[in-house]
Amino acid sequence: MQTLHIVKIGGNIIDEAVALDAFLESFSAIKGNKILVHGGGKMATDLGHALGIPQQLVDGRRITDAETLKVTVMVYAGLINKTIVSKLQSFGCNAFGLSGADGNLLTATRRLHAQIDFGWVGDITVENVNTNLLQMLLDSGFVPVISPVTHDGNGHLLNTNADTIASVISSALASDYAVKLTYCFEKNGVLRDVNDEDSIMPFLKKEEYLQLKHEGIISKGMIPKLDNAFNALDAGIAQLTICHAKHLKSCETKGIGTYLIKS
Amino acid sequence: MQTLHIVKIGGNIIDEAVALDAFLESFSAIKGNKILVHGGGKMATDLGHALGIPQQLVDGRRITDAETLKVTVMVYAGLINKTIVSKLQSFGCNAFGLSGADGNLLTATRRLHAQIDFGWVGDITVENVNTNLLQMLLDSGFVPVISPVTHDGNGHLLNTNADTIASVISSALASDYAVKLTYCFEKNGVLRDVNDEDSIMPFLKKEEYLQLKHEGIISKGMIPKLDNAFNALDAGIAQLTICHAKHLKSCETKGIGTYLIKS
Repeated sequence: MQTLHIVKIGGNIIDEAVALDAFLESFSAIKGNKILVHGGGKMATDLGHALGIPQQLVDGRRITDAETLKVTVMVYAGLINKTIVSKLQSFGCNAFGLSGADGNLLTATRRLHAQIDFGWVGDITVENVNTNLLQMLLDSGFVPVISPVTHDGNGHLLNTNADTIASVISSALASDYAVKLTYCFEKNGVLRDVNDEDSIMPFLKKEEYLQLKHEGIISKGMIPKLDNAFNALDAGIAQLTICHAKHLKSCETKGIGTYLIKS
Repeated sequence: MQTLHIVKIGGNIIDEAVALDAFLESFSAIKGNKILVHGGGKMATDLGHALGIPQQLVDGRRITDAETLKVTVMVYAGLINKTIVSKLQSFGCNAFGLSGADGNLLTATRRLHAQIDFGWVGDITVENVNTNLLQMLLDSGFVPVISPVTHDGNGHLLNTNADTIASVISSALASDYAVKLTYCFEKNGVLRDVNDEDSIMPFLKKEEYLQLKHEGIISKGMIPKLDNAFNALDAGIAQLTICHAKHLKSCETKGIGTYLIKS
Protein backbone atom coordinates (compact mmCIF):
# COMPACT_ATOMS: atom_id res chain seq x y z
CA MET A 1 0.00 0.00 0.00
CA GLN A 2 1.36 3.42 -0.96
CA THR A 3 1.93 6.07 1.68
CA LEU A 4 -0.10 9.28 1.49
CA HIS A 5 0.89 12.29 3.57
CA ILE A 6 -2.00 14.56 4.50
CA VAL A 7 -0.99 17.77 6.24
CA LYS A 8 -3.30 20.34 7.80
CA ILE A 9 -1.92 23.85 8.27
CA GLY A 10 -3.70 26.23 10.62
CA GLY A 11 -4.61 29.85 10.45
CA ASN A 12 -2.00 31.41 12.71
CA ILE A 13 0.83 30.21 10.45
CA ILE A 14 -1.01 31.35 7.32
CA ASP A 15 -1.10 34.90 8.71
CA GLU A 16 2.71 35.10 8.88
CA ALA A 17 4.29 35.25 5.41
CA VAL A 18 7.77 34.15 6.51
CA ALA A 19 6.52 31.23 8.63
CA LEU A 20 4.16 30.19 5.85
CA ASP A 21 6.95 30.20 3.24
CA ALA A 22 9.19 28.08 5.47
CA PHE A 23 6.33 25.66 6.08
CA LEU A 24 5.52 25.39 2.37
CA GLU A 25 9.17 24.69 1.58
CA SER A 26 9.14 21.84 4.15
CA PHE A 27 5.89 20.53 2.74
CA SER A 28 7.36 20.60 -0.80
CA ALA A 29 10.24 18.42 0.40
CA ILE A 30 7.92 15.55 1.43
CA LYS A 31 8.37 12.76 -1.11
CA GLY A 32 5.50 10.86 -2.71
CA ASN A 33 1.73 11.33 -2.54
CA LYS A 34 0.60 14.28 -0.46
CA ILE A 35 -2.36 16.56 0.18
CA LEU A 36 -2.44 19.91 1.98
CA VAL A 37 -5.55 21.14 3.79
CA HIS A 38 -5.45 24.75 4.93
CA GLY A 39 -7.48 26.79 7.39
CA GLY A 40 -8.39 30.41 7.39
CA GLY A 41 -6.62 32.67 9.81
CA LYS A 42 -7.53 36.17 10.77
CA MET A 43 -7.40 37.57 7.23
CA ALA A 44 -11.11 36.83 6.78
CA THR A 45 -11.96 38.45 10.12
CA ASP A 46 -9.89 41.51 9.17
CA LEU A 47 -11.57 41.76 5.76
CA GLY A 48 -15.00 41.43 7.38
CA HIS A 49 -14.15 44.27 9.75
CA ALA A 50 -12.75 46.44 6.94
CA LEU A 51 -16.02 45.97 5.03
CA GLY A 52 -18.13 46.73 8.10
CA ILE A 53 -19.70 43.28 8.22
CA PRO A 54 -20.73 42.62 11.82
CA GLN A 55 -19.20 39.48 13.31
CA GLN A 56 -21.97 37.52 14.96
CA LEU A 57 -21.08 35.16 17.76
CA VAL A 58 -23.71 33.00 19.46
CA ASP A 59 -22.54 31.05 22.53
CA GLY A 60 -18.97 31.80 21.43
CA ARG A 61 -19.53 30.31 17.99
CA ARG A 62 -19.25 32.31 14.80
CA ILE A 63 -22.26 32.67 12.53
CA THR A 64 -21.64 32.58 8.78
CA ASP A 65 -24.30 34.88 7.32
CA ALA A 66 -24.45 35.52 3.56
CA GLU A 67 -21.97 38.43 3.63
CA THR A 68 -19.55 36.58 5.89
CA LEU A 69 -19.72 33.58 3.55
CA LYS A 70 -18.66 35.80 0.63
CA VAL A 71 -15.68 37.02 2.65
CA THR A 72 -14.81 33.43 3.59
CA VAL A 73 -14.92 32.25 -0.02
CA MET A 74 -12.85 35.23 -1.22
CA VAL A 75 -10.16 34.78 1.41
CA TYR A 76 -10.05 30.97 1.86
CA ALA A 77 -10.81 29.63 -1.64
CA GLY A 78 -9.32 32.68 -3.37
CA LEU A 79 -6.42 34.56 -1.80
CA ILE A 80 -5.05 31.97 0.64
CA ASN A 81 -5.55 28.96 -1.62
CA LYS A 82 -4.01 30.54 -4.72
CA THR A 83 -1.16 32.16 -2.78
CA ILE A 84 -0.25 28.76 -1.34
CA VAL A 85 -0.57 27.04 -4.74
CA SER A 86 1.64 29.55 -6.55
CA LYS A 87 4.26 29.38 -3.77
CA LEU A 88 4.30 25.58 -3.87
CA GLN A 89 4.61 25.70 -7.67
CA SER A 90 7.70 27.90 -7.24
CA PHE A 91 9.18 25.20 -4.98
CA GLY A 92 8.69 22.61 -7.73
CA CYS A 93 5.60 21.09 -6.10
CA ASN A 94 2.78 20.60 -8.64
CA ALA A 95 0.06 21.99 -6.39
CA PHE A 96 -3.59 22.03 -7.43
CA GLY A 97 -6.00 24.18 -5.44
CA LEU A 98 -9.54 23.02 -4.82
CA SER A 99 -12.62 23.97 -2.89
CA GLY A 100 -15.19 21.30 -2.13
CA ALA A 101 -17.30 22.47 -5.07
CA ASP A 102 -14.55 21.80 -7.63
CA GLY A 103 -15.19 18.50 -9.33
CA ASN A 104 -17.70 17.86 -6.54
CA LEU A 105 -14.82 17.09 -4.17
CA LEU A 106 -16.77 17.63 -0.94
CA THR A 107 -20.53 17.93 -0.61
CA ALA A 108 -21.71 19.05 2.80
CA THR A 109 -24.94 19.27 4.73
CA ARG A 110 -25.93 22.66 6.03
CA ARG A 111 -25.78 22.53 9.81
CA LEU A 112 -29.18 22.47 11.46
CA HIS A 113 -29.45 23.30 15.13
CA ALA A 114 -32.60 23.60 17.17
CA GLN A 115 -31.60 26.88 18.86
CA ILE A 116 -28.84 28.47 16.76
CA ASP A 117 -28.87 29.33 13.07
CA PHE A 118 -25.20 28.93 12.15
CA GLY A 119 -25.86 30.27 8.67
CA TRP A 120 -23.85 28.90 5.74
CA VAL A 121 -21.89 26.27 7.67
CA GLY A 122 -21.54 22.76 6.29
CA ASP A 123 -20.88 19.48 8.04
CA ILE A 124 -19.21 16.54 6.30
CA THR A 125 -18.70 12.84 6.86
CA VAL A 126 -16.55 10.23 5.14
CA GLU A 127 -19.36 9.59 2.61
CA ASN A 128 -19.06 13.16 1.32
CA VAL A 129 -15.52 12.75 -0.02
CA ASN A 130 -15.00 12.23 -3.76
CA THR A 131 -12.10 9.81 -3.35
CA ASN A 132 -11.97 9.05 -7.10
CA LEU A 133 -11.12 12.67 -7.83
CA LEU A 134 -8.34 12.74 -5.22
CA GLN A 135 -6.92 9.46 -6.52
CA MET A 136 -6.97 10.78 -10.10
CA LEU A 137 -5.09 13.91 -9.08
CA LEU A 138 -2.56 11.96 -6.98
CA ASP A 139 -2.04 9.36 -9.73
CA SER A 140 -1.36 12.20 -12.17
CA GLY A 141 1.35 13.64 -9.90
CA PHE A 142 -0.65 16.60 -8.59
CA VAL A 143 -0.69 17.78 -4.99
CA PRO A 144 -4.25 18.74 -3.97
CA VAL A 145 -4.41 21.91 -1.83
CA ILE A 146 -7.84 22.03 -0.23
CA SER A 147 -9.56 25.14 1.13
CA PRO A 148 -12.22 24.92 3.86
CA VAL A 149 -15.12 25.74 1.55
CA THR A 150 -17.63 23.05 0.53
CA HIS A 151 -20.97 23.05 -1.29
CA ASP A 152 -24.42 21.54 -0.79
CA GLY A 153 -24.98 20.40 -4.38
CA ASN A 154 -27.84 22.87 -4.71
CA GLY A 155 -25.73 25.86 -5.68
CA HIS A 156 -24.71 27.04 -2.22
CA LEU A 157 -21.17 27.26 -0.91
CA LEU A 158 -20.61 26.40 2.74
CA ASN A 159 -17.97 27.21 5.33
CA THR A 160 -16.51 23.97 6.76
CA ASN A 161 -13.94 23.37 9.49
CA ALA A 162 -10.50 22.59 8.03
CA ASP A 163 -9.52 20.18 10.84
CA THR A 164 -12.64 18.17 10.05
CA ILE A 165 -11.87 18.19 6.32
CA ALA A 166 -8.37 16.84 6.99
CA SER A 167 -9.77 14.12 9.27
CA VAL A 168 -12.61 13.08 6.98
CA ILE A 169 -10.46 13.00 3.83
CA SER A 170 -7.82 10.94 5.68
CA SER A 171 -10.49 8.51 6.85
CA ALA A 172 -12.02 8.22 3.39
CA LEU A 173 -8.63 7.34 1.86
CA ALA A 174 -7.52 4.99 4.68
CA SER A 175 -8.47 1.85 2.74
CA ASP A 176 -6.50 2.92 -0.36
CA TYR A 177 -3.35 4.39 1.19
CA ALA A 178 -1.26 4.17 4.35
CA VAL A 179 -2.33 7.67 5.42
CA LYS A 180 0.02 9.70 7.61
CA LEU A 181 -1.91 12.72 8.87
CA THR A 182 -0.08 15.66 10.44
CA TYR A 183 -1.84 18.58 12.09
CA CYS A 184 0.53 21.55 11.99
CA PHE A 185 -0.13 24.60 14.12
CA GLU A 186 1.61 27.25 16.23
CA LYS A 187 2.22 25.02 19.28
CA ASN A 188 4.83 22.31 19.74
CA GLY A 189 2.22 19.58 20.11
CA VAL A 190 -0.38 18.61 22.69
CA LEU A 191 0.72 20.36 25.90
CA ARG A 192 0.02 19.31 29.49
CA ASP A 193 0.17 23.00 30.36
CA VAL A 194 -0.99 25.33 27.61
CA ASN A 195 1.34 28.06 28.94
CA ASP A 196 4.43 25.85 28.86
CA GLU A 197 5.66 25.03 25.35
CA ASP A 198 7.97 22.42 26.85
CA SER A 199 5.16 20.44 28.48
CA ILE A 200 4.65 18.53 25.24
CA MET A 201 3.24 15.01 25.43
CA PRO A 202 5.27 12.83 23.02
CA PHE A 203 2.43 10.28 22.91
CA LEU A 204 -1.26 10.54 23.62
CA LYS A 205 -3.54 7.52 23.88
CA LYS A 206 -7.26 7.91 23.36
CA GLU A 207 -8.15 6.83 26.92
CA GLU A 208 -5.61 9.31 28.27
CA TYR A 209 -7.09 12.06 26.07
CA LEU A 210 -10.61 11.35 27.29
CA GLN A 211 -9.36 11.49 30.89
CA LEU A 212 -7.45 14.79 30.35
CA LYS A 213 -10.51 16.27 28.64
CA HIS A 214 -12.67 15.18 31.55
CA GLU A 215 -10.22 16.80 33.98
CA GLY A 216 -10.21 20.04 31.97
CA ILE A 217 -6.45 19.80 31.31
CA ILE A 218 -7.10 19.62 27.57
CA SER A 219 -9.69 22.23 26.69
CA LYS A 220 -11.05 24.79 24.26
CA GLY A 221 -9.77 24.66 20.68
CA MET A 222 -7.77 21.49 21.25
CA ILE A 223 -10.90 19.43 21.85
CA PRO A 224 -12.42 19.57 18.35
CA LYS A 225 -8.92 19.15 16.87
CA LEU A 226 -8.24 16.02 18.92
CA ASP A 227 -11.75 14.65 18.40
CA ASN A 228 -11.17 14.99 14.65
CA ALA A 229 -7.76 13.41 14.96
CA PHE A 230 -8.93 10.38 16.95
CA ASN A 231 -11.83 9.91 14.52
CA ALA A 232 -9.27 9.51 11.73
CA LEU A 233 -7.27 7.02 13.81
CA ASP A 234 -10.46 5.06 14.51
CA ALA A 235 -11.08 4.99 10.75
CA GLY A 236 -7.79 3.18 10.26
CA ILE A 237 -5.20 5.72 9.17
CA ALA A 238 -1.58 4.66 9.67
CA GLN A 239 -0.17 7.55 11.73
CA LEU A 240 -1.23 10.81 13.31
CA THR A 241 1.07 13.57 14.53
CA ILE A 242 0.34 17.01 15.93
CA CYS A 243 3.30 19.37 15.74
CA HIS A 244 4.51 22.92 15.22
CA ALA A 245 4.48 24.00 11.57
CA LYS A 246 8.21 24.74 11.76
CA HIS A 247 8.87 21.11 12.70
CA LEU A 248 7.04 19.49 9.79
CA LYS A 249 10.29 18.23 8.28
CA SER A 250 11.68 16.72 11.46
CA CYS A 251 8.46 15.43 13.05
CA GLU A 252 8.48 12.55 10.57
CA THR A 253 12.01 11.44 11.43
CA LYS A 254 12.80 12.57 14.95
CA GLY A 255 9.56 12.15 16.83
CA ILE A 256 9.05 15.84 17.53
CA GLY A 257 5.42 16.69 18.29
CA THR A 258 2.70 14.48 19.74
CA TYR A 259 1.93 11.07 18.28
CA LEU A 260 -1.65 10.01 18.84
CA ILE A 261 -2.26 6.37 19.64
CA LYS A 262 -5.62 4.69 19.13
CA SER A 263 -5.43 2.45 22.20
CA MET B 1 -11.87 14.86 -34.07
CA GLN B 2 -14.05 15.60 -31.05
CA THR B 3 -15.78 18.94 -30.68
CA LEU B 4 -14.79 21.17 -27.77
CA HIS B 5 -16.94 24.17 -26.83
CA ILE B 6 -15.03 26.99 -25.19
CA VAL B 7 -17.20 29.80 -23.88
CA LYS B 8 -16.03 33.13 -22.49
CA ILE B 9 -18.45 35.01 -20.23
CA GLY B 10 -17.80 38.68 -19.55
CA GLY B 11 -18.01 40.83 -16.49
CA ASN B 12 -21.27 42.66 -17.04
CA ILE B 13 -23.26 39.42 -17.02
CA ILE B 14 -21.40 38.13 -13.96
CA ASP B 15 -22.57 41.20 -12.02
CA GLU B 16 -26.25 40.31 -12.53
CA ALA B 17 -27.25 37.22 -10.54
CA VAL B 18 -30.38 36.44 -12.58
CA ALA B 19 -28.66 36.85 -15.97
CA LEU B 20 -25.70 34.80 -14.74
CA ASP B 21 -27.94 31.95 -13.57
CA ALA B 22 -29.75 31.86 -16.90
CA PHE B 23 -26.43 31.86 -18.74
CA LEU B 24 -25.04 29.04 -16.58
CA GLU B 25 -28.15 26.96 -17.19
CA SER B 26 -27.66 27.40 -20.96
CA PHE B 27 -23.99 26.54 -20.64
CA SER B 28 -24.86 23.39 -18.65
CA ALA B 29 -27.11 22.26 -21.51
CA ILE B 30 -24.23 22.18 -24.03
CA LYS B 31 -23.43 18.54 -24.74
CA GLY B 32 -19.93 17.09 -24.83
CA ASN B 33 -16.55 18.61 -23.98
CA LYS B 34 -16.67 22.18 -22.76
CA ILE B 35 -14.64 24.83 -20.96
CA LEU B 36 -15.83 28.09 -19.42
CA VAL B 37 -13.53 31.11 -19.10
CA HIS B 38 -14.88 33.96 -16.99
CA GLY B 39 -13.94 37.59 -16.59
CA GLY B 40 -14.15 39.86 -13.62
CA GLY B 41 -16.85 42.47 -13.58
CA LYS B 42 -17.20 45.44 -11.31
CA MET B 43 -17.21 43.40 -8.10
CA ALA B 44 -13.42 43.74 -7.84
CA THR B 45 -13.61 47.49 -8.47
CA ASP B 46 -16.33 47.81 -5.82
CA LEU B 47 -14.31 45.79 -3.30
CA GLY B 48 -11.22 47.89 -4.03
CA HIS B 49 -13.23 51.05 -3.38
CA ALA B 50 -14.75 49.64 -0.19
CA LEU B 51 -11.25 48.86 1.08
CA GLY B 52 -9.96 52.31 0.12
CA ILE B 53 -7.45 50.97 -2.39
CA PRO B 54 -6.84 53.72 -4.93
CA GLN B 55 -7.57 52.68 -8.52
CA GLN B 56 -4.61 53.73 -10.64
CA LEU B 57 -5.17 54.34 -14.32
CA VAL B 58 -2.30 55.27 -16.63
CA ASP B 59 -3.28 56.22 -20.20
CA GLY B 60 -6.70 54.70 -19.48
CA ARG B 61 -5.22 51.39 -18.44
CA ARG B 62 -5.61 49.91 -15.00
CA ILE B 63 -2.53 49.26 -12.90
CA THR B 64 -2.53 46.10 -10.78
CA ASP B 65 -0.49 47.02 -7.71
CA ALA B 66 0.04 44.48 -4.90
CA GLU B 67 -3.18 45.41 -3.05
CA THR B 68 -5.25 45.42 -6.23
CA LEU B 69 -3.84 41.99 -7.13
CA LYS B 70 -5.08 40.62 -3.78
CA VAL B 71 -8.55 41.99 -4.50
CA THR B 72 -8.43 40.48 -8.00
CA VAL B 73 -7.45 37.05 -6.71
CA MET B 74 -10.10 37.14 -3.97
CA VAL B 75 -12.90 38.14 -6.32
CA TYR B 76 -11.95 36.36 -9.58
CA ALA B 77 -10.30 33.12 -8.39
CA GLY B 78 -12.36 33.02 -5.17
CA LEU B 79 -15.88 34.39 -5.10
CA ILE B 80 -16.76 34.47 -8.81
CA ASN B 81 -15.05 31.20 -9.71
CA LYS B 82 -16.51 29.19 -6.83
CA THR B 83 -19.98 30.75 -7.16
CA ILE B 84 -20.04 29.72 -10.83
CA VAL B 85 -18.71 26.23 -10.05
CA SER B 86 -21.28 25.54 -7.32
CA LYS B 87 -24.11 26.84 -9.54
CA LEU B 88 -22.99 24.65 -12.45
CA GLN B 89 -22.77 21.66 -10.09
CA SER B 90 -26.40 22.29 -9.08
CA PHE B 91 -27.33 22.12 -12.80
CA GLY B 92 -25.68 18.70 -13.08
CA CYS B 93 -22.56 20.04 -14.79
CA ASN B 94 -19.37 18.64 -13.21
CA ALA B 95 -17.56 21.98 -13.08
CA PHE B 96 -13.98 22.25 -11.88
CA GLY B 97 -12.64 25.72 -11.06
CA LEU B 98 -9.04 26.61 -11.79
CA SER B 99 -6.71 29.57 -11.77
CA GLY B 100 -3.62 29.46 -13.94
CA ALA B 101 -1.55 28.43 -10.91
CA ASP B 102 -3.54 25.25 -10.29
CA GLY B 103 -1.70 22.28 -11.74
CA ASN B 104 0.43 24.86 -13.54
CA LEU B 105 -2.40 25.43 -16.03
CA LEU B 106 -1.20 28.83 -17.27
CA THR B 107 2.19 30.36 -16.67
CA ALA B 108 2.47 33.99 -17.70
CA THR B 109 5.16 36.60 -18.22
CA ARG B 110 4.88 39.76 -16.22
CA ARG B 111 4.21 42.61 -18.63
CA LEU B 112 7.19 44.85 -19.17
CA HIS B 113 6.64 48.24 -20.71
CA ALA B 114 9.22 50.97 -21.25
CA GLN B 115 7.05 53.77 -19.86
CA ILE B 116 4.29 52.20 -17.77
CA ASP B 117 4.61 49.80 -14.84
CA PHE B 118 1.41 47.78 -15.15
CA GLY B 119 2.14 46.00 -11.89
CA TRP B 120 1.12 42.36 -11.49
CA VAL B 121 -0.24 41.84 -15.00
CA GLY B 122 0.69 38.73 -16.95
CA ASP B 123 0.77 38.08 -20.68
CA ILE B 124 0.34 34.62 -22.15
CA THR B 125 0.87 32.85 -25.45
CA VAL B 126 -0.12 29.43 -26.77
CA GLU B 127 3.10 27.96 -25.31
CA ASN B 128 1.94 28.82 -21.78
CA VAL B 129 -1.07 26.50 -21.82
CA ASN B 130 -0.85 23.13 -20.02
CA THR B 131 -2.93 21.25 -22.61
CA ASN B 132 -2.25 17.87 -20.94
CA LEU B 133 -4.03 19.05 -17.81
CA LEU B 134 -7.06 20.30 -19.75
CA GLN B 135 -7.24 17.05 -21.71
CA MET B 136 -7.03 15.00 -18.51
CA LEU B 137 -9.90 16.95 -16.97
CA LEU B 138 -12.01 16.77 -20.15
CA ASP B 139 -11.33 13.04 -20.58
CA SER B 140 -12.45 12.49 -16.98
CA GLY B 141 -15.76 14.26 -17.64
CA PHE B 142 -14.95 17.50 -15.84
CA VAL B 143 -15.81 20.98 -17.11
CA PRO B 144 -12.89 23.35 -16.44
CA VAL B 145 -14.00 26.80 -15.25
CA ILE B 146 -11.04 29.15 -15.62
CA SER B 147 -10.55 32.42 -13.76
CA PRO B 148 -8.39 35.24 -15.20
CA VAL B 149 -5.55 34.74 -12.71
CA THR B 150 -2.24 33.22 -13.82
CA HIS B 151 1.19 32.79 -12.21
CA ASP B 152 4.80 33.37 -13.18
CA GLY B 153 6.21 30.11 -11.79
CA ASN B 154 8.23 32.08 -9.23
CA GLY B 155 5.50 32.33 -6.63
CA HIS B 156 3.66 35.38 -7.98
CA LEU B 157 0.07 35.47 -9.12
CA LEU B 158 -0.75 37.68 -12.10
CA ASN B 159 -3.88 39.36 -13.45
CA THR B 160 -4.49 38.25 -17.05
CA ASN B 161 -7.14 39.30 -19.55
CA ALA B 162 -9.93 36.71 -19.80
CA ASP B 163 -10.56 37.28 -23.54
CA THR B 164 -6.90 36.49 -24.15
CA ILE B 165 -7.08 33.35 -21.98
CA ALA B 166 -10.07 32.08 -23.97
CA SER B 167 -8.29 32.79 -27.26
CA VAL B 168 -4.96 31.28 -26.24
CA ILE B 169 -6.50 28.13 -24.73
CA SER B 170 -8.63 27.65 -27.85
CA SER B 171 -5.57 28.03 -30.06
CA ALA B 172 -3.53 25.61 -27.96
CA LEU B 173 -6.23 22.94 -28.22
CA ALA B 174 -7.00 23.50 -31.93
CA SER B 175 -4.88 20.55 -33.05
CA ASP B 176 -6.59 18.14 -30.64
CA TYR B 177 -10.24 19.21 -30.89
CA ALA B 178 -12.59 20.95 -33.30
CA VAL B 179 -12.80 24.02 -31.07
CA LYS B 180 -15.95 26.14 -31.17
CA LEU B 181 -15.22 29.37 -29.30
CA THR B 182 -18.06 31.65 -28.23
CA TYR B 183 -17.52 35.08 -26.69
CA CYS B 184 -20.63 35.93 -24.68
CA PHE B 185 -21.22 39.47 -23.49
CA GLU B 186 -23.96 42.04 -22.97
CA LYS B 187 -24.33 43.03 -26.66
CA ASN B 188 -26.05 41.11 -29.43
CA GLY B 189 -22.84 40.68 -31.40
CA VAL B 190 -20.49 42.94 -33.33
CA LEU B 191 -22.53 46.07 -34.06
CA ARG B 192 -22.09 48.51 -36.96
CA ASP B 193 -23.48 51.17 -34.64
CA VAL B 194 -22.66 50.64 -30.98
CA ASN B 195 -25.87 52.48 -30.01
CA ASP B 196 -28.12 50.30 -32.14
CA GLU B 197 -28.50 46.74 -30.83
CA ASP B 198 -30.13 45.78 -34.14
CA SER B 199 -27.14 46.81 -36.24
CA ILE B 200 -25.60 43.38 -35.70
CA MET B 201 -23.24 42.00 -38.34
CA PRO B 202 -24.14 38.33 -38.89
CA PHE B 203 -20.69 37.70 -40.39
CA LEU B 204 -17.38 39.48 -40.03
CA LYS B 205 -14.38 38.73 -42.21
CA LYS B 206 -10.91 39.64 -41.02
CA GLU B 207 -10.28 42.10 -43.90
CA GLU B 208 -13.61 43.76 -43.17
CA TYR B 209 -12.73 43.99 -39.47
CA LEU B 210 -9.38 45.60 -40.23
CA GLN B 211 -11.13 48.12 -42.50
CA LEU B 212 -13.83 48.93 -39.89
CA LYS B 213 -11.14 49.30 -37.23
CA HIS B 214 -9.21 51.63 -39.54
CA GLU B 215 -12.37 53.71 -40.11
CA GLY B 216 -13.03 53.90 -36.36
CA ILE B 217 -16.41 52.14 -36.70
CA ILE B 218 -15.19 49.32 -34.48
CA SER B 219 -13.38 50.83 -31.53
CA LYS B 220 -12.50 50.72 -27.84
CA GLY B 221 -13.14 47.48 -25.97
CA MET B 222 -14.16 45.58 -29.08
CA ILE B 223 -10.68 45.86 -30.60
CA PRO B 224 -8.77 43.67 -28.14
CA LYS B 225 -11.72 41.24 -28.07
CA LEU B 226 -11.75 40.92 -31.86
CA ASP B 227 -7.95 40.80 -32.10
CA ASN B 228 -8.03 37.89 -29.65
CA ALA B 229 -10.83 36.25 -31.58
CA PHE B 230 -9.12 36.48 -34.98
CA ASN B 231 -5.88 35.19 -33.42
CA ALA B 232 -7.76 32.01 -32.44
CA LEU B 233 -9.20 31.69 -35.95
CA ASP B 234 -5.73 32.10 -37.40
CA ALA B 235 -4.56 29.31 -35.07
CA GLY B 236 -7.04 26.95 -36.71
CA ILE B 237 -10.07 26.72 -34.44
CA ALA B 238 -13.24 25.45 -36.11
CA GLN B 239 -15.74 28.22 -35.33
CA LEU B 240 -15.95 31.56 -33.59
CA THR B 241 -19.13 33.36 -32.53
CA ILE B 242 -19.68 36.57 -30.59
CA CYS B 243 -23.16 36.83 -29.07
CA HIS B 244 -25.27 38.02 -26.17
CA ALA B 245 -25.01 35.78 -23.11
CA LYS B 246 -28.78 35.22 -23.18
CA HIS B 247 -28.47 33.75 -26.69
CA LEU B 248 -25.82 31.15 -25.91
CA LYS B 249 -28.28 28.28 -26.44
CA SER B 250 -29.63 29.54 -29.75
CA CYS B 251 -26.46 31.02 -31.25
CA GLU B 252 -25.24 27.50 -31.98
CA THR B 253 -28.37 26.48 -33.83
CA LYS B 254 -29.98 29.61 -35.23
CA GLY B 255 -27.08 31.79 -36.26
CA ILE B 256 -27.79 34.55 -33.75
CA GLY B 257 -24.72 36.70 -33.02
CA THR B 258 -21.72 37.45 -35.22
CA TYR B 259 -19.76 34.66 -36.89
CA LEU B 260 -16.15 35.58 -37.50
CA ILE B 261 -14.60 34.40 -40.74
CA LYS B 262 -10.87 34.05 -41.23
CA SER B 263 -10.83 35.18 -44.87
